[in-house]
Amino acid sequence: MPKRNAFYAQSGGVTAVINASACGVIETARKYKDQIGKVYAGRNGIIGALTEDLIDTSKESSTAISALRYTPSGAFGSCRYKLKGLDQSRAEYERLIEVFKAHNIGYFFYNGGGDSADTCLKVSQLSETMGYPLQAIHVPKTVDNDLPITDNCPGFGSVAKYIAVSTLEACFDVASMCKTSTKVFVLEVMGRHAGWIAAAGAIAARKEGELPILVLFPEVAFDQDKFLEKVEAMVKSHGYCTVVVSEGVKGPDGKFLSDQGLRDAFGHAQLGGVAPVVANLVRERLNLKFHWGVSDYLERAARHIASKSDVAQAYAVGKVAVEAALKGRNSVMPAITRVSNRPYKWKIELADLKDVANKEKFMPPDFISEDGFGITRKCRTYLEPLIAGEDYPPYVGGLPDYVQLKNAPVPKKLSASFEI
Amino acid sequence: MPKRNAFYAQSGGVTAVINASACGVIETARKYKDQIGKVYAGRNGIIGALTEDLIDTSKESSTAISALRYTPSGAFGSCRYKLKGLDQSRAEYERLIEVFKAHNIGYFFYNGGGDSADTCLKVSQLSETMGYPLQAIHVPKTVDNDLPITDNCPGFGSVAKYIAVSTLEACFDVASMCKTSTKVFVLEVMGRHAGWIAAAGAIAARKEGELPILVLFPEVAFDQDKFLEKVEAMVKSHGYCTVVVSEGVKGPDGKFLSDQGLRDAFGHAQLGGVAPVVANLVRERLNLKFHWGVSDYLERAARHIASKSDVAQAYAVGKVAVEAALKGRNSVMPAITRVSNRPYKWKIELADLKDVANKEKFMPPDFISEDGFGITRKCRTYLEPLIAGEDYPPYVGGLPDYVQLKNAPVPKKLSASFEI
Repeated sequence: MPKRNAFYAQSGGVTAVINASACGVIETARKYKDQIGKVYAGRNGIIGALTEDLIDTSKESSTAISALRYTPSGAFGSCRYKLKGLDQSRAEYERLIEVFKAHNIGYFFYNGGGDSADTCLKVSQLSETMGYPLQAIHVPKTVDNDLPITDNCPGFGSVAKYIAVSTLEACFDVASMCKTSTKVFVLEVMGRHAGWIAAAGAIAARKEGELPILVLFPEVAFDQDKFLEKVEAMVKSHGYCTVVVSEGVKGPDGKFLSDQGLRDAFGHAQLGGVAPVVANLVRERLNLKFHWGVSDYLERAARHIASKSDVAQAYAVGKVAVEAALKGRNSVMPAITRVSNRPYKWKIELADLKDVANKEKFMPPDFISEDGFGITRKCRTYLEPLIAGEDYPPYVGGLPDYVQLKNAPVPKKLSASFEI
Repeated sequence: MPKRNAFYAQSGGVTAVINASACGVIETARKYKDQIGKVYAGRNGIIGALTEDLIDTSKESSTAISALRYTPSGAFGSCRYKLKGLDQSRAEYERLIEVFKAHNIGYFFYNGGGDSADTCLKVSQLSETMGYPLQAIHVPKTVDNDLPITDNCPGFGSVAKYIAVSTLEACFDVASMCKTSTKVFVLEVMGRHAGWIAAAGAIAARKEGELPILVLFPEVAFDQDKFLEKVEAMVKSHGYCTVVVSEGVKGPDGKFLSDQGLRDAFGHAQLGGVAPVVANLVRERLNLKFHWGVSDYLERAARHIASKSDVAQAYAVGKVAVEAALKGRNSVMPAITRVSNRPYKWKIELADLKDVANKEKFMPPDFISEDGFGITRKCRTYLEPLIAGEDYPPYVGGLPDYVQLKNAPVPKKLSASFEI
């Protein structure tokens, strides 16, 4: 079989370990130089393929590529560009195939969440229809942990570790001064639809009830009175309380709690988070001193406190993606299968993209405690191994020594440009 | 000389390394068992002394005490209780002396910022007036870095490291997606009066201009138009921009920028941060997509990413405080003197409390760049050594293994209680 090139793209919100998957893809491809030519990357994700803006990763040294393992964010750029169905976006899919053809690309590695799994599946279907041989492999990534089949998603373990460690540290801080100062700390975390990230706040306590932590999930409609009762009880028993609130929490009316119709002094709409809303409620109704924080991008970029198993899994799904392609597999996703909890063991198995695309995995109801403000033992057993182990980046002069690649462009071959 | 006990208290906002100072005090005192009896700690700070609520640290194992070195927050509790002048608060000072007398306390170690330096000085003066021999030593601590004489304050280096690392990681994250998504990220940091913490955001870039970071200092009146111009220029040159804003930034009218008179849907006053205000401005005036974060307590509690030199200095000031007391010194503070920048060398020298109390150290004007949105080379040279080196806590099961002490009470000896 003649040697063909590979294309790799990053999709959607970036994570602390998506570059570790890129590292897994590129390092593995480099081991099979007899079968895979160059690895091209899409500049700013799939847009790079559509506009024929490709990056030649062969111009990067092996040191630079191995540094991707400990560099957060998307080294080649990412985007949220969603390709629609084949019938609506046929021109886009055809353009992709055209670009792949022009650059002799036989392997398509698409690193992202649910949307990119769907795109990957469609590309694979079209390549068959068009008679252009292509192996399309989806490499899973999402801090939201909402992909089906895989036990967990690369990217989630590290954000979970960041939230667990931050919640623990916040608890210690507030406990120190709660006698005379702040009694309620509210930490807003990501998660529009699923409460996986918020749930990680609860494992800051090694045992249920060890620390006064209260979680607000998007899966549970916000009950103001029950919430305030709970806060009051925790402040009474522990002297303070830490609330970890998902950005996606909704009231009984189905509206986001963050959407409070705030106006600034000039009457302009103010875009606030949910943390100040919850904190304000605590102040107005319970008259307790509060502080609040919103970690936002910091939580998903925090490679400095990445989970060791997350880094290992992110690398592994990249590596297995290439190996699967070389074995002739198509339209699959390397998924993580949990083998045992203690000790934590996992392996990578290939899932059919048809079973992955367009399915979202929410927190199972038996992962949320009966009162709706915490997690069950089952959830704890699931989460704990995912934050285990540290994998520190190297530091120079007090800062992580993250790599910035050269990202040299591949000369264009097509005359036609493509409008996004 | 008969053996006398020591009293140690933590004051004001806690830090990632104030317990390292406690560790320095207690471990050193334990080495001089022939001269120092027990070390008592004030439960919840100086309030513990006033109410005779003392903790017997001799009940803690040497393992537990050595774990304080890597445990953030205030292990014995802290408070912001400020003792006023001797004439106004004479009863309080006399009560302190009375409690010290009852428990044979001859050494007073007060670990805090400017206010506690002042209290420490007054206690020392009163002990002389009242003929009660006491050596009062102030142990410096403050994330605000605003104490005079000492080159820097224990606690600041770690918060600076957290902000520098977080700003670096946020820059990488935003850079990945700025082509099609967020172009401006606003990170709010602590600092009501002095911009030291915000300045640390600027050293995320190893060289001036390497990363598009813009700092808003409380020392510089906010100029909306100049700011927006700067943001626009950075987005043009780098594709994105990260704004690190001090909570204490004020407009030209002298009012906090965060004080926008926000009202929620019910017309109630909403307590917001400054980050959403700045982010909103960017959206309204430049129509750029933004995200914002507020790290709040997370930044000062983040022992997981503490600066190695900060931890070492925090321990050293505690150790030297005890050694100074044993040498008969009184009314002094161990201060950090910088010996050289490269390699970074420092030593501890004793400063007279009269020169420390009631003086605040702001950012020197020649530390802020001419345009008011960044730092000078001089500031960079000052800051860089303070974040150098990592000092990771031990982990168990993915979480830092922070210690919680027993905090056993010392039996009361006085019949009179004292109302705070």
